[in-house]
Amino acid sequence: MSQFTDIDRLAISTIRLLSVDQVAAANSGHPGAPLGLAPAAHVVWKQLKLNPQQPEWINRDRFVLSNGHACALLYSMLHLSGFDFKIEDLKNFRQLGSKCPGHPEFELPGVEVTTGPLGQGISNAVGLALAQANFAATYNKPEYTLSDSYTFAFLGDGCLQEGVASEACSLAGHLKLGNLIAVYDDNQITIDGNTNVSFTEDVAKRYEAYGWEVLYVENGNEDLDSIAECIAQAKQSKDKPTLIKMTTTIGFGSLQAGTHSVHGSPLKPDDVKQLKTTMGFDAEQSFVVPQEVYDLYNTQIIQPGVKQYNEWTQLLEQYSSKYPELAAEVTRRISGELPQDWEKTLPAFTPKDSPVATRKLSEIVLQNIQGALPEMIGGSADLTGSNLTRWKEAVDFQPPSSGLGDYAGRYIRYGVREHGMAAIMNGISAFGANYKAYGGTFLNFVSYASGAVRLSALSGHPVIFVATHDSIGLGEDGPTHQPIETLAHFRALPNMQVWRPADGNEVSASYKVALTSKHTPAIIALSRQNLPQLEGSSIEKAAKGGYVLQDVENADITLVSTGSEVSITVDAAKKLAEKNVKARVVSLPDFYTFDQQSEEYQLSVFPDDIPIMSIEVLSTSGWSKYAHESFGLDRFGASGPAPEIYKTFEFTPEGIATRAEKTIAFYKNKQVISPLHKPF
Amino acid sequence: MSQFTDIDRLAISTIRLLSVDQVAAANSGHPGAPLGLAPAAHVVWKQLKLNPQQPEWINRDRFVLSNGHACALLYSMLHLSGFDFKIEDLKNFRQLGSKCPGHPEFELPGVEVTTGPLGQGISNAVGLALAQANFAATYNKPEYTLSDSYTFAFLGDGCLQEGVASEACSLAGHLKLGNLIAVYDDNQITIDGNTNVSFTEDVAKRYEAYGWEVLYVENGNEDLDSIAECIAQAKQSKDKPTLIKMTTTIGFGSLQAGTHSVHGSPLKPDDVKQLKTTMGFDAEQSFVVPQEVYDLYNTQIIQPGVKQYNEWTQLLEQYSSKYPELAAEVTRRISGELPQDWEKTLPAFTPKDSPVATRKLSEIVLQNIQGALPEMIGGSADLTGSNLTRWKEAVDFQPPSSGLGDYAGRYIRYGVREHGMAAIMNGISAFGANYKAYGGTFLNFVSYASGAVRLSALSGHPVIFVATHDSIGLGEDGPTHQPIETLAHFRALPNMQVWRPADGNEVSASYKVALTSKHTPAIIALSRQNLPQLEGSSIEKAAKGGYVLQDVENADITLVSTGSEVSITVDAAKKLAEKNVKARVVSLPDFYTFDQQSEEYQLSVFPDDIPIMSIEVLSTSGWSKYAHESFGLDRFGASGPAPEIYKTFEFTPEGIATRAEKTIAFYKNKQVISPLHKPF
Repeated sequence: MSQFTDIDRLAISTIRLLSVDQVAAANSGHPGAPLGLAPAAHVVWKQLKLNPQQPEWINRDRFVLSNGHACALLYSMLHLSGFDFKIEDLKNFRQLGSKCPGHPEFELPGVEVTTGPLGQGISNAVGLALAQANFAATYNKPEYTLSDSYTFAFLGDGCLQEGVASEACSLAGHLKLGNLIAVYDDNQITIDGNTNVSFTEDVAKRYEAYGWEVLYVENGNEDLDSIAECIAQAKQSKDKPTLIKMTTTIGFGSLQAGTHSVHGSPLKPDDVKQLKTTMGFDAEQSFVVPQEVYDLYNTQIIQPGVKQYNEWTQLLEQYSSKYPELAAEVTRRISGELPQDWEKTLPAFTPKDSPVATRKLSEIVLQNIQGALPEMIGGSADLTGSNLTRWKEAVDFQPPSSGLGDYAGRYIRYGVREHGMAAIMNGISAFGANYKAYGGTFLNFVSYASGAVRLSALSGHPVIFVATHDSIGLGEDGPTHQPIETLAHFRALPNMQVWRPADGNEVSASYKVALTSKHTPAIIALSRQNLPQLEGSSIEKAAKGGYVLQDVENADITLVSTGSEVSITVDAAKKLAEKNVKARVVSLPDFYTFDQQSEEYQLSVFPDDIPIMSIEVLSTSGWSKYAHESFGLDRFGASGPAPEIYKTFEFTPEGIATRAEKTIAFYKNKQVISPLHKPF
Repeated sequence: MSQFTDIDRLAISTIRLLSVDQVAAANSGHPGAPLGLAPAAHVVWKQLKLNPQQPEWINRDRFVLSNGHACALLYSMLHLSGFDFKIEDLKNFRQLGSKCPGHPEFELPGVEVTTGPLGQGISNAVGLALAQANFAATYNKPEYTLSDSYTFAFLGDGCLQEGVASEACSLAGHLKLGNLIAVYDDNQITIDGNTNVSFTEDVAKRYEAYGWEVLYVENGNEDLDSIAECIAQAKQSKDKPTLIKMTTTIGFGSLQAGTHSVHGSPLKPDDVKQLKTTMGFDAEQSFVVPQEVYDLYNTQIIQPGVKQYNEWTQLLEQYSSKYPELAAEVTRRISGELPQDWEKTLPAFTPKDSPVATRKLSEIVLQNIQGALPEMIGGSADLTGSNLTRWKEAVDFQPPSSGLGDYAGRYIRYGVREHGMAAIMNGISAFGANYKAYGGTFLNFVSYASGAVRLSALSGHPVIFVATHDSIGLGEDGPTHQPIETLAHFRALPNMQVWRPADGNEVSASYKVALTSKHTPAIIALSRQNLPQLEGSSIEKAAKGGYVLQDVENADITLVSTGSEVSITVDAAKKLAEKNVKARVVSLPDFYTFDQQSEEYQLSVFPDDIPIMSIEVLSTSGWSKYAHESFGLDRFGASGPAPEIYKTFEFTPEGIATRAEKTIAFYKNKQVISPLHKPF
């Protein structure tokens, strides 16, 4: 006998119409997928562990709408299940300042991750599931299951075609994440029409190849029992993620059902009317929720969820008396605060210390801080030995059956999957529990992950990209591996720290600021080659994003540089001094952090009346924010030993000094204003 | 009986040692994969159709080393098969200015595409195969097979993990590209160690799911016959691409064989010696090629190739007498020249013409020019109806058996696969025959393709990205879809045109320059919303990359803008004129092209003594090259109707005029120098 009644079917009609009404009110949006997916959403919600009054509850089930364009559906569900989405909010769908924007945004209550850019949501879901597995393995005790939540995701053909999803799902299969349940909305329609124009692969077979369990719902439009059975079965699949391939009709019930014209355009008014009539609703009314539906959601979803939450808080209390230290750690992590004095574990350096590559200094930082920060979880996209992202005692995050690690392990072998890695990191961060996710690759290949990095910034996930081999200084691998445009790209991205530390203190500062950051991700660009420990650097100064490394009275020029060029610039200043040319040297490891400082401080670093020249072996684009002139590399690099390449492109003390002198001559007898002054 | 003799085995040892010697001489590089892959390379080469004297021969077989770090192998092969790689060149492996850089580069004879960034080569190979299928379907006649070449690719675990390869290979399966043969170097090792740490999926099953034929070589180290049989079988697989899963030992023969330490570091000197001794070579000598090996390559590879080439030229002659027009087209295309007067098909507009979205104007251009340019082949990443990339009469490029098109079709349904699309476009371009590949997506999602776009620029493939929905002007879809950093990113990329045309004439100009370009790719950023046809624009002027749209004597300010903001800026100038403030208006649709103009011309556009303010609703980063002050959007956008968003962010005539007045006030009584003047 079915567990579903007519009230369930009424609820599904309500969801369908609420979603269609949102799109109609905005005269913009995507009605097709919500119409097809409403039954699955209803069935999933009926067994979702949630508490709308505690949307951040750490043991809630997560729901990710990877096909984010179907967001009207999500807003309908969040409204019915008691989250802070009023009918008035739904009526403002896609309006400026609305709580129901055109794609779901992370900040909103009940929205687990920002979706819309295809392939990201399902990849974030892998990260959420990974974090849950790690959290559970770290804190659960035989008699106390603090964490046992599931991650659900809806996704469509678009997400399945994206490479980022392929990467993340392959890894999810490898990692045997049985807590991940994805519902594939197999409606055979994308924007270009039928999927047979471009997407005829056997998706189920591919996911089996990844190591997933694949289940089937043949009639996702109506067969609620089949959906429920698949979900129950998926929950039993403990060592495999599950893909439920569910056949639906896009725009179910609409006159345009089953066509791509119902994907991204509002239904015609007549179509909306016939839909309402057919479903037994008043064709003239909009945004209608029958009281029985509210009651069903209240008694069958909200109340059980609140009860589960209350039981969980009691469980945590009992846990606290038995495991006070662990409980304190859990509580601290949930509060989002780092441990007191963690930053004292950061190494500091003096000029007497040996020259070391900043990637190696990054390894030292990770080694030093990992004990203090159990929330730190990181890895590399198959460049562990090059990125130096693994501390000595690290345990790999692996399925215990692999014999290679366990789920409490905090080192992730991402494989050669940069984009998947970044999207998974976003998911880990979104899980909560103060997870600090980092991931390593070459700086040049952070670009492969651009789609996900952008969402780190837009969503405010404070993840860290450990980006080594940050310039032509990597040498022989040549221009395919040497970043040029990369820093300019990510510095132009809002809400993104882009560190390029010059020595050990600056590396410590970059981690200090990045790890303290609550809503801003960071890229830390690190050298392959050794760099000296600078006279004048300190963690405190570098943590301001920029500072005067070497000052001089009555300076003729301010030289500002980052990373591996700072020490060369210091040598250039010495060369200039020999000619009685006075150069200040500024180190500017992160534009974003520097921009947060007071105007007064910023002007003390870049004062008026002194021409400013920047030095960095990458694109000069973006530097004019601080410098009048820029010495950089606005062409591709070359393959050869690094010192020879530096020489060829004149990134030497002489090459810098010559340009400094030309800059001074150019600005002689001209009024020089700091670029920090702006008319608006 | 085996077709292989001891001389073949000697040749394979020679290839192995030549490759190891290169890495040893440079003390840098990747010896592991060449040692494992030498047998496969030798067997593939023995049936490769090539002519070293005519490396651009259109009917040559293509070979792509997708695992580009194994390039020492490729240089060895090119040396032996008579391409312009001398032993001296091999000795200069990875040295500055060498013909043997750290990864293979497109400009080099016999190198079909630049590889190294993983996943790109195999995706380029899909493009090469696609282009061959199109070329053959377009020009072959029953009695004249002008084109029947194959595309071979070697790839390793790294390439297989990358999402870009997943996207491209899924499409290759859909398209049934039987002319594509990929050899998977299944050595179970990546940089992080054994593939079991992150890559345990069933690759063969996945490729079968994509619709590929999968064949197996169990002992790729030695079983030459098995390799040869698989290749022969793959060539018979006419309606499926083939993956040959070949098990090898990384670093075969080395003391470190089978470990990841042999992947990316030179062998130790003792190891090299034992390798040479074991293979019967003099341990003290390097870069040795026995004469028998040269002879074998000469008689079995070079001579047959030259013969095939000569037969082909005769065939083309006969074809010319029977199909003079088609032959002339083939010859013209091979020469790399566009048809005479093709640009006369570009539409021109006057201010009387209606306002039209530039994406629609782009559609008009494509519609108008497609008849004149048979080399134009394009598509969209599942946004055809939004990108407007398809001309009316277009035939889809599809396997004929699909009933949806044929291989002579020039419209490609890429699916939701932006990165794969870009990498395939690079491959199509690399095929030759003057292919002009374009591909559409939203501007924001060109970022998903960053890895491949970078290689378009680095390799100089003149492909075109039709990038619509280019700003907050797309409205309701919101910040997940609204580009901010995107133009700054790609403008910072060397050798890249980044067009943002403001009206119909500028759209025509952008296509004119992009299609005429031989070695520079282009992104053409296009509006979703309608824009007026501007007074003062022309194809000729816009083709300079930037020009004075409206001049005025004794100007107080120069306003420079792009795309959708140009007409708002014109209105701002009117507002200013009402207050007796004189504003020049410059339209700057492409920085790159503008930078190619004479200094004199550039200074006529941005003269001294007038402050310059830029207006563009994206990141201001990079604008200081031309403007003293910039009005832009250095934050994420918002979801809502486009006109309201523009108003909120003050991109209105009033908002621009106010900032212009502040800029004028700021520079009053200050000496103003054009930013074009540089001290160095």
